[in-house]
Amino acid sequence: MSSTAPTRAVVLHAAKDLRVETLAPLAALKPGEVRVAMEVGGICGSDLHYYQDGGFGVIRLKQPMVLGHEVAGRIDALGAGVTTLAVGDRVAVSPSRPCGMCKYCQQGAQQHCLDMRFYGSAMRFPHIQGAFAQAITADARQCHMLAPGLTAAEGAMAEPLAVCLHAGRRAGPLLGRRVLITGAGPIGVLASLVARRAGAAEIVITDVADTPLVLAKKLGCDQTINVAKQPDGLQEFAKDKGSFDVMFEASGNERALTGAFDALRPGAIIVQLGIGSTFTLPINTLVAKEFELRGTFRFHEEFALAVQLMGAGLIDVKPLVTATLPFTSAVEAFELAADKTKSVKVQMTFG
Amino acid sequence: MSSTAPTRAVVLHAAKDLRVETLAPLAALKPGEVRVAMEVGGICGSDLHYYQDGGFGVIRLKQPMVLGHEVAGRIDALGAGVTTLAVGDRVAVSPSRPCGMCKYCQQGAQQHCLDMRFYGSAMRFPHIQGAFAQAITADARQCHMLAPGLTAAEGAMAEPLAVCLHAGRRAGPLLGRRVLITGAGPIGVLASLVARRAGAAEIVITDVADTPLVLAKKLGCDQTINVAKQPDGLQEFAKDKGSFDVMFEASGNERALTGAFDALRPGAIIVQLGIGSTFTLPINTLVAKEFELRGTFRFHEEFALAVQLMGAGLIDVKPLVTATLPFTSAVEAFELAADKTKSVKVQMTFG
Amino acid sequence: MSSTAPTRAVVLHAAKDLRVETLAPLAALKPGEVRVAMEVGGICGSDLHYYQDGGFGVIRLKQPMVLGHEVAGRIDALGAGVTTLAVGDRVAVSPSRPCGMCKYCQQGAQQHCLDMRFYGSAMRFPHIQGAFAQAITADARQCHMLAPGLTAAEGAMAEPLAVCLHAGRRAGPLLGRRVLITGAGPIGVLASLVARRAGAAEIVITDVADTPLVLAKKLGCDQTINVAKQPDGLQEFAKDKGSFDVMFEASGNERALTGAFDALRPGAIIVQLGIGSTFTLPINTLVAKEFELRGTFRFHEEFALAVQLMGAGLIDVKPLVTATLPFTSAVEAFELAADKTKSVKVQMTFG
Amino acid sequence: MSSTAPTRAVVLHAAKDLRVETLAPLAALKPGEVRVAMEVGGICGSDLHYYQDGGFGVIRLKQPMVLGHEVAGRIDALGAGVTTLAVGDRVAVSPSRPCGMCKYCQQGAQQHCLDMRFYGSAMRFPHIQGAFAQAITADARQCHMLAPGLTAAEGAMAEPLAVCLHAGRRAGPLLGRRVLITGAGPIGVLASLVARRAGAAEIVITDVADTPLVLAKKLGCDQTINVAKQPDGLQEFAKDKGSFDVMFEASGNERALTGAFDALRPGAIIVQLGIGSTFTLPINTLVAKEFELRGTFRFHEEFALAVQLMGAGLIDVKPLVTATLPFTSAVEAFELAADKTKSVKVQMTFG
Repeated sequence: MSSTAPTRAVVLHAAKDLRVETLAPLAALKPGEVRVAMEVGGICGSDLHYYQDGGFGVIRLKQPMVLGHEVAGRIDALGAGVTTLAVGDRVAVSPSRPCGMCKYCQQGAQQHCLDMRFYGSAMRFPHIQGAFAQAITADARQCHMLAPGLTAAEGAMAEPLAVCLHAGRRAGPLLGRRVLITGAGPIGVLASLVARRAGAAEIVITDVADTPLVLAKKLGCDQTINVAKQPDGLQEFAKDKGSFDVMFEASGNERALTGAFDALRPGAIIVQLGIGSTFTLPINTLVAKEFELRGTFRFHEEFALAVQLMGAGLIDVKPLVTATLPFTSAVEAFELAADKTKSVKVQMTFG
Repeated sequence: MSSTAPTRAVVLHAAKDLRVETLAPLAALKPGEVRVAMEVGGICGSDLHYYQDGGFGVIRLKQPMVLGHEVAGRIDALGAGVTTLAVGDRVAVSPSRPCGMCKYCQQGAQQHCLDMRFYGSAMRFPHIQGAFAQAITADARQCHMLAPGLTAAEGAMAEPLAVCLHAGRRAGPLLGRRVLITGAGPIGVLASLVARRAGAAEIVITDVADTPLVLAKKLGCDQTINVAKQPDGLQEFAKDKGSFDVMFEASGNERALTGAFDALRPGAIIVQLGIGSTFTLPINTLVAKEFELRGTFRFHEEFALAVQLMGAGLIDVKPLVTATLPFTSAVEAFELAADKTKSVKVQMTFG
Repeated sequence: MSSTAPTRAVVLHAAKDLRVETLAPLAALKPGEVRVAMEVGGICGSDLHYYQDGGFGVIRLKQPMVLGHEVAGRIDALGAGVTTLAVGDRVAVSPSRPCGMCKYCQQGAQQHCLDMRFYGSAMRFPHIQGAFAQAITADARQCHMLAPGLTAAEGAMAEPLAVCLHAGRRAGPLLGRRVLITGAGPIGVLASLVARRAGAAEIVITDVADTPLVLAKKLGCDQTINVAKQPDGLQEFAKDKGSFDVMFEASGNERALTGAFDALRPGAIIVQLGIGSTFTLPINTLVAKEFELRGTFRFHEEFALAVQLMGAGLIDVKPLVTATLPFTSAVEAFELAADKTKSVKVQMTFG
Repeated sequence: MSSTAPTRAVVLHAAKDLRVETLAPLAALKPGEVRVAMEVGGICGSDLHYYQDGGFGVIRLKQPMVLGHEVAGRIDALGAGVTTLAVGDRVAVSPSRPCGMCKYCQQGAQQHCLDMRFYGSAMRFPHIQGAFAQAITADARQCHMLAPGLTAAEGAMAEPLAVCLHAGRRAGPLLGRRVLITGAGPIGVLASLVARRAGAAEIVITDVADTPLVLAKKLGCDQTINVAKQPDGLQEFAKDKGSFDVMFEASGNERALTGAFDALRPGAIIVQLGIGSTFTLPINTLVAKEFELRGTFRFHEEFALAVQLMGAGLIDVKPLVTATLPFTSAVEAFELAADKTKSVKVQMTFG
């Protein structure tokens, strides 16, 4: 597309008020910047929270905001001094722009940057605009070149895969571990791919819908349990104080977490990926079984790793994409993404 | 005392029904066993839970039980084959008797033994009788010789100190860390001694009563906050996403835990020592700040370490004992121990 | 075979004096024991050291010893009380028999047992006889049932795979790591399978012979370097203080270790698997780059894990077996195993 | 001193050619810089290597260089924008100036910065000039304010203490560990203070001279061994495969390292602080006992921690200073520092 063409984007004005609009023209590229002609964007759980509820927890939409932070496209123009990319390169664009200078950045904990600007986030005001647009301006360092065989659809999966790679690292070594995953949405299923890639010996996954569990089984999970149909499905793992070494909680549901306590062995590590409002926990059990409940938040170097592992054929995310719609059908795409009985990951095209 | 003398003990029959009674004569010593003439026993929070409520959580008193698991005394008689102890030796007696053979014992996680027999615990039935008695039979390996300068009162502190040393190890390295402790009862104060011994650079402790905070300050805590009087006392630590690297939660109070979240830095480690019924947590904060909430339960090799560190003068527990009563005044001792405005640790003598 | 049939075995009398002999009849089974009719045994590097040099380091052969500790067979008879196995079951037999009671066993470090009896080892005297025999007596807990699809040849690979799984765990998390392996013998190649299984993003392997490198490439290593032909082959990885996060040294050659120092990034972890006499290291480099050089020795729970991962199809060891001979041709088999230009793993059949 | 006064410094021209010379006037302060009027500087082992040998390993003096990197003084003038310091403040000056932007800095591993400028180091050319001068220009962030009670002599110990705090962290948790230290020079003794501060239960230190051992004992080491007089002094620790959990090697002597192997328990962690040319190690022992030999190099955030711990009275370094001379007697001071029978730490004054 020409640099002077108008750019259309998917803009949220309020809960349930999602519009396709034309943005103001993009500013001229500064040194170190590039323009990306967008190809594909995936709808994330936080996009859905904004769309459905206007935010989550204390984070609320206060002005119109372009959504989207799972995107891939082609380099369209280069700012001065950019030598590592060329026009036409297909790239996954990381939505994460830490400052690099604050104390957390200098400790290698960029996900906790004191001045983070993360695409499509209302955590600060003015909000940081997202990437569901026909073209965006990005820093060159945000753009990670895709290996020749990778599609833009795969590139747009780099972001949620990075989230799960970071979660996997938060769990510590997984080689030979028995792993339980609660929630078979995109994050739960990607967590299963990461756990398998990292050497888990056994992976059991639970959900309340069959569709995602069928996919999870196809993608390598050893056992699936529909806990809506089998509320006691985890009891077989409760023998001798419990079986699982590691749990990834990817449902954001309190009962998923506490319902697994009997099935977790003493010393088990629980990585909490899902978010919700509050969770009420039997703290005596956490103490007596010496669980470790670890939050995990976004990613940093794992974005590059996600691109690398997909490029090397070591993780295959393609089967997760259950539907692809044009961005001009954004409302339809968001509604479909919200229906967990039909969808795992829904993406939009911007071509 | 003669081996044939009747042994009197502190027996709980039901909540608030604590009696001093004469036990059946002790059985003859088996090989590897010793008889210990008790000198001192300390009243623990779980003793108080049994006394006040007849148990805690799902653990309930179902038959009369001798209480007590913080004890020290002198070796009174040796079973066959015991060569590492001599009659007259002053010893701290570990209440922990793991089986040694189950999978957890073989992994060095004896605190999770599948066949644990822990003094004064109603976790299994018949209950495991406790050690608040004039004499008890113990395995030689439970008895840890005290260094010459140590008193029996210090020996009886080995158990709660071991709990806190284990908690300290659960926290990972503490050298140079900023540490927050909530709850200045015996466990909180001992945790502060452990944190200091392990190299904490700064220790802040909170409670709702002044008496224990005065003691904590005297024992080396850098700052004390009475959160009943200063509910916002931790706000000064909330700058730049929080200050404390490590938190020991020793109050068993949900608000102590969640009230500290703003003051904890991203990635902070929270070691949960206190028990309560259920805790309701803002799970989004735990996720976004990547906290690690770690339960800690009892101890194993830390019992010997507690005896060693006290013997070497590296940890001094004497100031924690705020009152000492004869065991024949057990009810009075328990009531005093329950009054947190007056007591930190209350011990009883059995001489 | 009948329990009264004579048992023939592969016995080493001195360096280069390897004989096939008839053993004294096996004693009657005690409770908890089983008799295993051997099917396959693999020749290990330490077997070769005994055969070629009569030992290694201070460990020397002082009496005739049956060699062999990589074996699999079928349960032939059950001692009293054995309920977890049945006659006819195909099992991999762990050569490791720790005492279970010493301080290291009670810490979960059974590989350092103070009273270890490991098959085919001259570490103690009388030597512990090995398993290259038509039938052996074993403890039931040593016998790990193979999944239906596994061959005895695969079962006999459980032991070296367990060594490499233990080495992999010694390396810490491998997800996304760049890994260098020096030495493409059975241990080096198995280490590459473990590193890949545990999520290594890139694996480079070196050797001085082409045959094993061809196999390593086929089994998934990303790059192979014949350092005999390309002595500077690792220089491309020296940029910016080095590339590899983790190194597995599996050659036992000092130059392999020190020759990789430039290619290792600061803070790299080196897991030393190979043994030799002495290594001379540039200690200043180890200090200035903060390397961690970690020894790794045998295994414990990783034996069961090896059987499990093979059974689940998560690691495929079959391609490593480059030759199979009858045990009656033991000398020929040992000579072939010693020829690194022709062999990776050589096994013998005992049927 | 006036900003226009000539500045004299201790300049090394070649091995054994150390001169006190007048430097060119200091340039005007840039924004963010300060001028420090030096009070005290301590002589480090690397200063001695330059003085005695003209360098160490491949690092050689190629042009005249001001030595010194253990210094403290008073703020003399402020550059524009410096608000955290005031004229007259007493500060310890960190010699470490990482770039902040390279990949290692962004990972929190600033000690491996690709563009490090470290005072008094010939690692790069032109060499980075040192701080043994009456006045220096520094970045404000290099200057760490000393607590009111601290002397400049203590401030000048912040650097070697930071080295040992970093080494202590490299060792992992030390609470309750048995620690061996080889070499009782300034680094060995400081390592003992760090180990004790971090909770070591027992500390044994060795050297070949009595003077430093007497100091080490006075400062809290539990046992000292002069291995020149008692070559077998460590044998008592060899029982049951060895006693020490952690070793700090601070002598740079190969025999100190290998001579301790029998006394180290399986799985022991060895932190290598001392540098030498090459070390020849029995690699089989390192493998069979699963030692971890970890290099440790300089420090980063530990400099601020050193200042903090001294200021809080948690580590007392004053007794290590065995002599103080004026910088005009630099040659005499260096010769004295090199005599290990007389000196632990020698400092110079610049007032």
